[in-house]
Amino acid sequence: MSDRYDPTDRDRFTFGLWTVGNPGRDAFGGPVRPTLSPVSIVELLGEVGAWGVNFHDNDLVPIDATAAEQDRIVAAFRKALDATGLRVPMATTNLFSDPAFRDGAFTSHSPEVRAYALHKTMRAIDLGVELGASLYVFWGGREGCECDAGKDALEALKRMREALNFLTHYVKDQGYDLRFALEAKPNEPRADIYLPTTGAMLAFIETLEHSEMVGVNPEVAHEHMAGLNFTHALAQSWDAGKLFHIDLNDQNGPRYDQDLRFGSCNPKAAFHLVRFLERVGYEGPRHFDAHAYRSADVEDVRSFARGCMRTYNILRERAEQFEKHPEIQSLLMEIRAGDPVEEAQPPYTSGKAAALKSRTFDRKALGERALPYERLDQLTTELLLGNI
Amino acid sequence: MSDRYDPTDRDRFTFGLWTVGNPGRDAFGGPVRPTLSPVSIVELLGEVGAWGVNFHDNDLVPIDATAAEQDRIVAAFRKALDATGLRVPMATTNLFSDPAFRDGAFTSHSPEVRAYALHKTMRAIDLGVELGASLYVFWGGREGCECDAGKDALEALKRMREALNFLTHYVKDQGYDLRFALEAKPNEPRADIYLPTTGAMLAFIETLEHSEMVGVNPEVAHEHMAGLNFTHALAQSWDAGKLFHIDLNDQNGPRYDQDLRFGSCNPKAAFHLVRFLERVGYEGPRHFDAHAYRSADVEDVRSFARGCMRTYNILRERAEQFEKHPEIQSLLMEIRAGDPVEEAQPPYTSGKAAALKSRTFDRKALGERALPYERLDQLTTELLLGNI
Amino acid sequence: MSDRYDPTDRDRFTFGLWTVGNPGRDAFGGPVRPTLSPVSIVELLGEVGAWGVNFHDNDLVPIDATAAEQDRIVAAFRKALDATGLRVPMATTNLFSDPAFRDGAFTSHSPEVRAYALHKTMRAIDLGVELGASLYVFWGGREGCECDAGKDALEALKRMREALNFLTHYVKDQGYDLRFALEAKPNEPRADIYLPTTGAMLAFIETLEHSEMVGVNPEVAHEHMAGLNFTHALAQSWDAGKLFHIDLNDQNGPRYDQDLRFGSCNPKAAFHLVRFLERVGYEGPRHFDAHAYRSADVEDVRSFARGCMRTYNILRERAEQFEKHPEIQSLLMEIRAGDPVEEAQPPYTSGKAAALKSRTFDRKALGERALPYERLDQLTTELLLGNI
Amino acid sequence: MSDRYDPTDRDRFTFGLWTVGNPGRDAFGGPVRPTLSPVSIVELLGEVGAWGVNFHDNDLVPIDATAAEQDRIVAAFRKALDATGLRVPMATTNLFSDPAFRDGAFTSHSPEVRAYALHKTMRAIDLGVELGASLYVFWGGREGCECDAGKDALEALKRMREALNFLTHYVKDQGYDLRFALEAKPNEPRADIYLPTTGAMLAFIETLEHSEMVGVNPEVAHEHMAGLNFTHALAQSWDAGKLFHIDLNDQNGPRYDQDLRFGSCNPKAAFHLVRFLERVGYEGPRHFDAHAYRSADVEDVRSFARGCMRTYNILRERAEQFEKHPEIQSLLMEIRAGDPVEEAQPPYTSGKAAALKSRTFDRKALGERALPYERLDQLTTELLLGNI
Repeated sequence: MSDRYDPTDRDRFTFGLWTVGNPGRDAFGGPVRPTLSPVSIVELLGEVGAWGVNFHDNDLVPIDATAAEQDRIVAAFRKALDATGLRVPMATTNLFSDPAFRDGAFTSHSPEVRAYALHKTMRAIDLGVELGASLYVFWGGREGCECDAGKDALEALKRMREALNFLTHYVKDQGYDLRFALEAKPNEPRADIYLPTTGAMLAFIETLEHSEMVGVNPEVAHEHMAGLNFTHALAQSWDAGKLFHIDLNDQNGPRYDQDLRFGSCNPKAAFHLVRFLERVGYEGPRHFDAHAYRSADVEDVRSFARGCMRTYNILRERAEQFEKHPEIQSLLMEIRAGDPVEEAQPPYTSGKAAALKSRTFDRKALGERALPYERLDQLTTELLLGNI
Repeated sequence: MSDRYDPTDRDRFTFGLWTVGNPGRDAFGGPVRPTLSPVSIVELLGEVGAWGVNFHDNDLVPIDATAAEQDRIVAAFRKALDATGLRVPMATTNLFSDPAFRDGAFTSHSPEVRAYALHKTMRAIDLGVELGASLYVFWGGREGCECDAGKDALEALKRMREALNFLTHYVKDQGYDLRFALEAKPNEPRADIYLPTTGAMLAFIETLEHSEMVGVNPEVAHEHMAGLNFTHALAQSWDAGKLFHIDLNDQNGPRYDQDLRFGSCNPKAAFHLVRFLERVGYEGPRHFDAHAYRSADVEDVRSFARGCMRTYNILRERAEQFEKHPEIQSLLMEIRAGDPVEEAQPPYTSGKAAALKSRTFDRKALGERALPYERLDQLTTELLLGNI
Repeated sequence: MSDRYDPTDRDRFTFGLWTVGNPGRDAFGGPVRPTLSPVSIVELLGEVGAWGVNFHDNDLVPIDATAAEQDRIVAAFRKALDATGLRVPMATTNLFSDPAFRDGAFTSHSPEVRAYALHKTMRAIDLGVELGASLYVFWGGREGCECDAGKDALEALKRMREALNFLTHYVKDQGYDLRFALEAKPNEPRADIYLPTTGAMLAFIETLEHSEMVGVNPEVAHEHMAGLNFTHALAQSWDAGKLFHIDLNDQNGPRYDQDLRFGSCNPKAAFHLVRFLERVGYEGPRHFDAHAYRSADVEDVRSFARGCMRTYNILRERAEQFEKHPEIQSLLMEIRAGDPVEEAQPPYTSGKAAALKSRTFDRKALGERALPYERLDQLTTELLLGNI
Repeated sequence: MSDRYDPTDRDRFTFGLWTVGNPGRDAFGGPVRPTLSPVSIVELLGEVGAWGVNFHDNDLVPIDATAAEQDRIVAAFRKALDATGLRVPMATTNLFSDPAFRDGAFTSHSPEVRAYALHKTMRAIDLGVELGASLYVFWGGREGCECDAGKDALEALKRMREALNFLTHYVKDQGYDLRFALEAKPNEPRADIYLPTTGAMLAFIETLEHSEMVGVNPEVAHEHMAGLNFTHALAQSWDAGKLFHIDLNDQNGPRYDQDLRFGSCNPKAAFHLVRFLERVGYEGPRHFDAHAYRSADVEDVRSFARGCMRTYNILRERAEQFEKHPEIQSLLMEIRAGDPVEEAQPPYTSGKAAALKSRTFDRKALGERALPYERLDQLTTELLLGNI
């Protein structure tokens, strides 16, 4: 069955090797699915219609592989990319699984661990660039603490900054055409992770030496874990010119990191997200950082991957309908009606300020203007449900 | 009973008129305590030993007061300040109670409402400065939405920025010695408030025309409502040179805004907060933005106010003990031990990067180094409990 | 415009006087809408197509009304009911607004307050029965604490039990045909409310003298505030024969009590809820315990009320489609396939147990059976979105 | 160093094999500590002063062990128990790790899986009883769903009930002196787990055939994950005569399951918990279901275990001080003052009801009585901090 929601290259849908390749291990049980080779994952992604594939260094090359092994693996992977037409838009480093990083990588108290984290990241950047990545994501899963007595958050920020500065220098020095995207998460696996929200990351970026090459990679689940509105986080990122990448999935509020199929928990929140991306003209990849339920077998993993993309395309269609729906548009015009007040318009002048300060306002009338948001939201819900 | 925890002027403890003056109204019931006049509140604060008092414009002067009424009120207030020796370090605007602001003030769709919000804020700034405030707080309680279909978050950010730019111009134009502090809150009374965390505010500030005069006012309860570590938010604010003010209270995680007595919900989190402020040498006011339980009468409101200050001073003493405790300090030294790795130290050079990339690391050894955080955290707990 | 989603009497849609009558007051601002008289609210509900109206005693009769005033109010209300054809299926007591109840009603430390709470409830029961109610709801908004040092939870449970026992005796003694439904909420306006979940209420009911006449009134928002699956709470209530009433609204996870328009936050969770009610054949009222946004005027309150009912009817249609959808039903059959294992079937016998204990299982095969939940959930999402 | 907080047998402190034996694996990284044999864990627990040790069947005996291997393992374990003087008060079944249980054990759709779960549990019960357990815990980590379309919650409850009925019959049939304790958890590793709170479990127990032998095992972290007050859950369990066991640890609100060292996150909440247990005279084991940070080595695991017990004993001492503190006790008397109102006292009579209905109350006076909870809570905090 093929229809207008089938993924196309224009959609720029990507998955990480670790997403469809996730074997279903969790904190309370071991793997339930066979471990797929990177080549098999690329083939699976090609089959379901993805446009690209992303990876952590150790998704592709085991942490203890020899140089020769790495070469063989990379060659096979490249061949699979060629065969399927997939590309690698993004790469990242695993700085969280190895026991060496159990108290952080860039923020570890150990200078040796921090140095190893830089070493590992430079090598992983080389690998990512070699395979075509133009974006490099940083998720610092262990950059946090359980015990505030033992780790100084100020020092951690300083160390994080030094590491990122080092690495932006490295990228420029190598002449790589590569940008960085920082990904926030409030907690898990640490009790508290530093720079816990997209907002915090945006602020941190402004303290970097090459802030122009560093943006964010907001993830739906991670903002929802803090009870935050993901679309608002996107808006702030876009407003700052920093929406370099996005991690699409779903999550039911503050709890463990669920990484659910895109749109599967709350399709209305997903609708607003898609509407935002499409309206502003976001042109980066739509990356699904999700994984199938632990109950799934490989066939159901395929359904999972297809479902992520299909729901995106359905919601995009709805977003287009929203922009054209007569009553919705008429309500929006009503809600937004009103003539500009000249004294309040930029640029500021002393004269405007004085005039504005002495202006009289009809507070009561302002409190009574119609704002039919209930009507608008109900229409939006019905449009989402395919009823109008 | 008087002891070493009694508040002194050196402590710079402040309360808002709205805190001890809160009559106990909530979403499910009306006031339970008499409404105290601003003068009575100042007297109460003087009596319990506060150093200063803050206010929203309409805490002091009713929104519909005439100029003459305002003069009388301000004169009486000033007299009470003189009598008690209290000062006004901070002022702010109520842009959330009046129905005119029910869909936002600076981010309202109505140009007239936005203009009124500027008008009201300029007048409130004048009032604050007249009474000695050197800091002006912005909490945009209605700057958010329930219905993402109806309000464009990008446009809201743009409007918020224009308003703050206008007001920084105004302050400079008036020659006021006044800085701004932006206060974040994730939700309540709106479903989602824009710029929901201190991190988001710090990022937003960097987009302002006079960002140097704008900092943050982090509030314990507001970060806890997003499940975030408050001390980490303080650290990022301090790191950015933006910790202009602080709202101390307590809150038990994601739920309605509790504004509990400082340290009363989780004294351990409060300990780390106090330890941070004292270590970095924060010199601003310690403002308690809390209110007594709805069960309290005015006498219990006094206990509430005294309790906030007393707990702070107890925790400060503990923080000093922490810095001197032999085993704690020895554990910290152990945890932080390690020689710098020269190649990883700034400044970056190509040579260092190359050396670091080819360096060999003993991953296993790094994974096995001792990190006695359980021991350290247990000692910290016992120190907090007064046992060591 | 009229269509198949218009409310009919068969739908049994009800609203509380306090829902559409809510004037938009919240913790940060006063009323924004005119206070509607009970008669006007009944007329509004009649106009939008509701089947019934519920009330707290003081929604209808002010707490300080004289007997004569009460008679006049009740007569006018009854006339409005007759004129519109609405009925009163449920009534309840306001035991949370008055300062007398600020530390609880049935669980207050004051014997006088507890007696007054019984007094007020008996009178409110009389009023409810007089107006036709066959169900009486108990929501103990102040039955909790902020300070665990001051209120003994064991004693509180005992007092709650004594109050309910007293009142069930009273109802029987009066010969009323009335059942009770207990409504849980985890917090707000108290830091912690006793019996915080529907599950806790179900357990508590079993400790009552006339437990057979006491059931539950689960509310969507209240379970979501604890991050719980509302449909699962319904299932446990139904399983226990205790689903006497229901409060429909919406809520975005742990935060302040939002009471949003039904289905407006998460239509997928609402779909499962509706599917559950319709499948089991729940025949009680569908009560919307929600209120319009504070931005709404009375016209938008009408849109709000219509939207609650309309979304329910749309979701009911989808639930019917779900039961008939060939691929969904075929997946369900596949997921549920398997022959009963006789030894594990009730009734227990020693022989079965012995046989079962020595039976051999193919653990590996059990771990590999197909469970295509991703496919099923994606189809459910597309059905919800009106795409299949 | 030895002092009055050292654990003694009177304290009845227990740990699960899986707690101090936890190798530090989590969802984002593999083990960091050596896997300790059951014998080594018993030795470690003996060394730190625990009174008992609990286990899941597969903590002790691998799921694929032969009968001969089991015998050898059990003999060695028993020898270690004898050597250390530890006992096994509780045992439980691992029904969550094996892929066979990935969609539930007792609630699986597969009759074969359900039968296997009974088979495995009977064998594990035999093993527990053989080693002296008098209590058997059920935590159904996989008894839930991600996809409400695929699993019927009503049916799940029915299956859970049948399984527990089967197993109570089995225990009686075998003549075992064993009680069951059901442990609730709201989510993780499933999106939603059935019977998510202690309250829900208490209600469910009432639907069992041998409810008298089934109680609850409340866990601090699991209630906190739902934002609930743990002490209130204890109170309801105790009130129902169902507090058969307890899992002590700590957790910072709704987020992933942290299983932190007892009292380490919020010592004030832990204080109320200990005060409750000691006041009511709970005589069961104090079981610490926690694990050390992933940063810990085995030495730090010892500190973790010692810390759990030590904090309990410190808090017990504080609880005793609370009961004797003059001002605290005087405040409690003031708060609780008031003469009984005879008409409101059980037993109910028509006459009392009539008298109570016509009684006049001084609402205003009731709203003004003093309730100095702020003072009381501040004293409690200072007592907790060792200052009074």
